[in-house]
Amino acid sequence: MSSFDDVATPALILDRSRLGSNIDTMARRAAALGVPLRPHGKTPKCGDVARLLIEAGAVGLTVSTLREAEGYFAAGVADLFYAVALAPAKVERAAALIARGAALTCLIDHREAISAIGGAAASADATLPLVVELDVDGYRSGASPGDVVALARTIADHDNLRFAGVMSYGGASYGCTPSEVAGLAETHRLALVEARDDLRAAGLPCGMVSFGSTPAVLHARSMEGMTELRCGIYAFQDLFQAAIGACTIDDIALSVLTTVIGVRRERNRVVVDAGGLAMSKDLSTARTSHDAGYGLVCDIDGMPMPDVHMSTTSQELGLLTTFSGAPLPFGRLRIGDRVRVLPNHADMTAAAHDGYHVIGGPSDGIDYWKRFNGW
Amino acid sequence: MSSFDDVATPALILDRSRLGSNIDTMARRAAALGVPLRPHGKTPKCGDVARLLIEAGAVGLTVSTLREAEGYFAAGVADLFYAVALAPAKVERAAALIARGAALTCLIDHREAISAIGGAAASADATLPLVVELDVDGYRSGASPGDVVALARTIADHDNLRFAGVMSYGGASYGCTPSEVAGLAETHRLALVEARDDLRAAGLPCGMVSFGSTPAVLHARSMEGMTELRCGIYAFQDLFQAAIGACTIDDIALSVLTTVIGVRRERNRVVVDAGGLAMSKDLSTARTSHDAGYGLVCDIDGMPMPDVHMSTTSQELGLLTTFSGAPLPFGRLRIGDRVRVLPNHADMTAAAHDGYHVIGGPSDGIDYWKRFNGW
Repeated sequence: MSSFDDVATPALILDRSRLGSNIDTMARRAAALGVPLRPHGKTPKCGDVARLLIEAGAVGLTVSTLREAEGYFAAGVADLFYAVALAPAKVERAAALIARGAALTCLIDHREAISAIGGAAASADATLPLVVELDVDGYRSGASPGDVVALARTIADHDNLRFAGVMSYGGASYGCTPSEVAGLAETHRLALVEARDDLRAAGLPCGMVSFGSTPAVLHARSMEGMTELRCGIYAFQDLFQAAIGACTIDDIALSVLTTVIGVRRERNRVVVDAGGLAMSKDLSTARTSHDAGYGLVCDIDGMPMPDVHMSTTSQELGLLTTFSGAPLPFGRLRIGDRVRVLPNHADMTAAAHDGYHVIGGPSDGIDYWKRFNGW
Repeated sequence: MSSFDDVATPALILDRSRLGSNIDTMARRAAALGVPLRPHGKTPKCGDVARLLIEAGAVGLTVSTLREAEGYFAAGVADLFYAVALAPAKVERAAALIARGAALTCLIDHREAISAIGGAAASADATLPLVVELDVDGYRSGASPGDVVALARTIADHDNLRFAGVMSYGGASYGCTPSEVAGLAETHRLALVEARDDLRAAGLPCGMVSFGSTPAVLHARSMEGMTELRCGIYAFQDLFQAAIGACTIDDIALSVLTTVIGVRRERNRVVVDAGGLAMSKDLSTARTSHDAGYGLVCDIDGMPMPDVHMSTTSQELGLLTTFSGAPLPFGRLRIGDRVRVLPNHADMTAAAHDGYHVIGGPSDGIDYWKRFNGW
């Protein structure tokens, strides 16, 4: 592993070998389920990661913003699914991407959206493929199962829209045990299969039957009938995924490199230059039995420093201490020393950073992979 | 007010007239206290806001990253105080800014840092002004009061360092009532005065005696002996500041423009395209008696929609509902409608955005002011 001496802190570190291993694991899982992956690009927001995902067999990418769609298209990925309900004002930008050659599919979950989006598509002289989101668990968004056929028909009847299929996101699978997740995943799958069958019976075939969430895909007993699986976080993994049993700590490919800038032995406290912006304010592990504060601390080589975590953040400061109250290993935490902090939620932590310092790759040096942030 | 039709959502909206009023209020407060302001640039991270702060009498700016220092220097602000303990590896970059003409003062709070920073300053052929941070409340960082004179002497004795004074940050003033804050502020002020007197007696005069935190400055009975006041959030204000009595809701200059993309009447839920990234995951008002969820919702003109707030976020989705359980005003929340969401913590919310769409300015249109994010 190369030296981090030239990397200014705080900085995102991406372990290429763990990334590759996580990608392979999920590719094998999808192969075992017999359904291709459409990984979620909202986690990496990075063309270089996209390339690895596609090489591992992904059929395309899911995106959460049009900026991601534009970034991935520029990086050579043309098959894109924008899995957030499309605002009518965004149709023009989506249509521009389609005009440039992207196979971009968009999403709706409400009748009101269809005429506005259809009108905007007509103004842009585009034909927009639209998928209907199905609410399978009341978690977030999506149409009621009973409304799907009517929505699909309204789409199919519009000259500038094309009905492309159904999708669901099983957000409720977070916060469950693996066996509960398996049960939920099956309920979700059956809801999608039923919607597909209803649509087929109504003469509205589904090109896409798209199933989502990393834990659901990991623990599902069957994905029969699904045309693709959407999961994102698995490529990086994080402490929340480890806390719910979707990975181990050693699988986490993302960390934040940070420098010790203060030491207070009498308070059993070390101050580092990664705070609420560099780590994010995400405290999702606090809801699990593996509360990690703002992150678990590893040494510069990525080896966990047992008991040491980030307990508090200010905007640009993080305070390290121990869970047990035992003294910190101050000899390894002197002013200027560097450590790496594993994040609770990789998506949120990565978001404040311009890109990844990539270690463990074939070049033996540290590569830099840019992200596409914002909207 | 101009139309937001051309602004893609989610987007940061900055109300120029509230911004100006907040800046004037704090400038008058500082004038009444007889101590100049050095506003914290970590909130706006924006050269255009800096210009307004300087025009209102600020002596310079505080920064939390070297990227901010570089950005503000490029915007014409030369007097800068980097108020996060300096990592030795950052000396070269700080020295480069000084060599270009910046009056950049840096911070330490630990003996170990001094020799490393001094050595790096010598290598860079620079003389670095260093301030010592005093821990006044155990909140975060800073040296024990008893260590300050020895630290200052070690700095003064180094050929490439110059002892520039003392500072403190009264972080514990958050989470207190206004009258408690006034008491804490006086304790902090006296600690700084005592440190200054000790240093003076030891032949180490303090050019800078710098006092910080917005609520402490607002509620302090006296700032006698301080050479400058550091506060940042006041220019924008936010729901947390309103919750602790440092401003009113009508003072909040920052909001996130977002579009309704989903409506679920039967769940009393509306989905908007601003989520955990556009708002941040900050839940600081949950610790107060004014829990706002992820933010309070206003109409497009900035008028609060009583009872409506963002209760849940995904990465790119926010769910709106009512506190009371009364039905949402669905007639004003149709697909494609736009609303503005007031943030809990302006610094964190602004951080995900490239810049501000500025309304209410002299140009009568919508200006765009860029931010300097990252490190």
